[in-house]
Amino acid sequence: MIGAGAIGGFYGVRLAQAGSDVHFLFRNDAVHVREHGLKVTSPDGDHIHHPVNAHPGWETIPQVDVAIVAVKAQANADVAPLLPSILKPGGSVLLIQNGLGSEELIAEAIGPEYSLIGGLAFIQTERVGPGHVAHYALGQLSMGAFLPDYQQAPVTDAMRTIADELGKAGVDSELAEDLLEARYRKLLWNAPFNGLSVILNATTDLMINDPAVYALVGTVMQELISAAAAEGRKIDPAFVELLLEGTKLMPAYSTSMKVDYDHGRPLEIDGMIGAPLARAARFGVEMPALETIYKELQFINARLGA
Amino acid sequence: MIGAGAIGGFYGVRLAQAGSDVHFLFRNDAVHVREHGLKVTSPDGDHIHHPVNAHPGWETIPQVDVAIVAVKAQANADVAPLLPSILKPGGSVLLIQNGLGSEELIAEAIGPEYSLIGGLAFIQTERVGPGHVAHYALGQLSMGAFLPDYQQAPVTDAMRTIADELGKAGVDSELAEDLLEARYRKLLWNAPFNGLSVILNATTDLMINDPAVYALVGTVMQELISAAAAEGRKIDPAFVELLLEGTKLMPAYSTSMKVDYDHGRPLEIDGMIGAPLARAARFGVEMPALETIYKELQFINARLGA
Repeated sequence: MIGAGAIGGFYGVRLAQAGSDVHFLFRNDAVHVREHGLKVTSPDGDHIHHPVNAHPGWETIPQVDVAIVAVKAQANADVAPLLPSILKPGGSVLLIQNGLGSEELIAEAIGPEYSLIGGLAFIQTERVGPGHVAHYALGQLSMGAFLPDYQQAPVTDAMRTIADELGKAGVDSELAEDLLEARYRKLLWNAPFNGLSVILNATTDLMINDPAVYALVGTVMQELISAAAAEGRKIDPAFVELLLEGTKLMPAYSTSMKVDYDHGRPLEIDGMIGAPLARAARFGVEMPALETIYKELQFINARLGA
Repeated sequence: MIGAGAIGGFYGVRLAQAGSDVHFLFRNDAVHVREHGLKVTSPDGDHIHHPVNAHPGWETIPQVDVAIVAVKAQANADVAPLLPSILKPGGSVLLIQNGLGSEELIAEAIGPEYSLIGGLAFIQTERVGPGHVAHYALGQLSMGAFLPDYQQAPVTDAMRTIADELGKAGVDSELAEDLLEARYRKLLWNAPFNGLSVILNATTDLMINDPAVYALVGTVMQELISAAAAEGRKIDPAFVELLLEGTKLMPAYSTSMKVDYDHGRPLEIDGMIGAPLARAARFGVEMPALETIYKELQFINARLGA
């Protein structure tokens, strides 16, 4: 598990609970976690995973069947070239990340002898302290095999194995044959709500109950549906209604980008917003509302800490 | 002078300096101003106008040749029906305000027996305390006669008289025969910079020197040029470059909307942004970047003081 924050910590502990032999790469918490374990508090029950195979660096990680990458997109370029060094021959990489386009960078770095799976976490978690992940709601992991140009791709054995292990620990998975469509579906919610939560400094409840923001989110979702359509991915416009009304039922929630903003951390705007804009432009689709949001976020991101 | 804040206070004092008999309607400051006078501090020299014809209500205002309205657009609906009560037969109303469309409301309220002039203040002023207006830079007042549907209209005697009086006090005027084009030209700067200064909580220097915001402002300006073109008003796209590069030369500046925001006052978003959007839609023009900015501002405006 490369990156054991809110996402990697949660899924890593669940896999370990299921009996998988999980090794974690920590940026800062390895020593703390070796002593105190890795804790997941959750409405499903709390669990401390201990002892932990906690690594402060890549050198000590053994050869693995699956390298799960759960870092922020900004770290992909540093992580990608190191992955072959920890993979068994024929091993797989599972990239759990938001946005679009990161698979291309990873696939190029690991080459054709390893397979790549894109993962999308439908979950609300937060790293609340060293070795402590709070799980608030949901949990499903969607996975789809990556092939060049996001061609549709059959489900792989590695995907089934991961899903089986997560299932033993009570975590649902979805195995998709169209990773790109899955990514667009997730972007439909992520791009407008993450972006606007930072620009408007607001939780989801305040945004969804404001008629102007409700309308704006709908506009951005329609833009993304047009972009997906230009790539041959048809998303039913009724899905927009479903996402909007579903968000009304959610408790007040700070998006991951808002949490980063509140902590003064760099914002994941390129993967989540910039990459979809660039990709849509390649297919001749403009997304002017999302473009406006992106430019505002670039300003905010550039001035973090200023 | 109906409304003697940053704009009305400045032009009212300048007209009085020129020898005009000016009466001021104050919301709160009448008593203070009667005692201490009305002060304009300025790089052109400071001046205290005293004694002041300061009125706390409409009842004591005498019949005038010209009623100058310099309130926020939100107050137009309250002010408009009272204007005939203070106008001499054949008198004029000069509305100094940003945005688009306010003339229609005023014109309907005063009826055809009075003439209406639209005014645009190219000035940086601030009401810094009771009876004290700080003038920082610029000062030109553009005026254009209003006819239904913003038809082009010849310069009137009242416009010339006002311009002459202001000229005596060292204030430049521009007499336009196309009020609508003048309004669009001013909107080109006002709409993006006012809107984004609140959304991004930033002064002009920070915005203009950020490449993303620079590009976004240019996009909004192009949208407004398209809207003007749909009404038959041709604005040279080179004017965008001129405004952007001119803004680079300005010192750091808080827009009027940002000043309102910083004081927790309602934002002038309907006149400055909502009305142009609605007008463009009537002419079949979409302005998606400005629409995005508007929806964000509606959220921010609704939550002021929350």
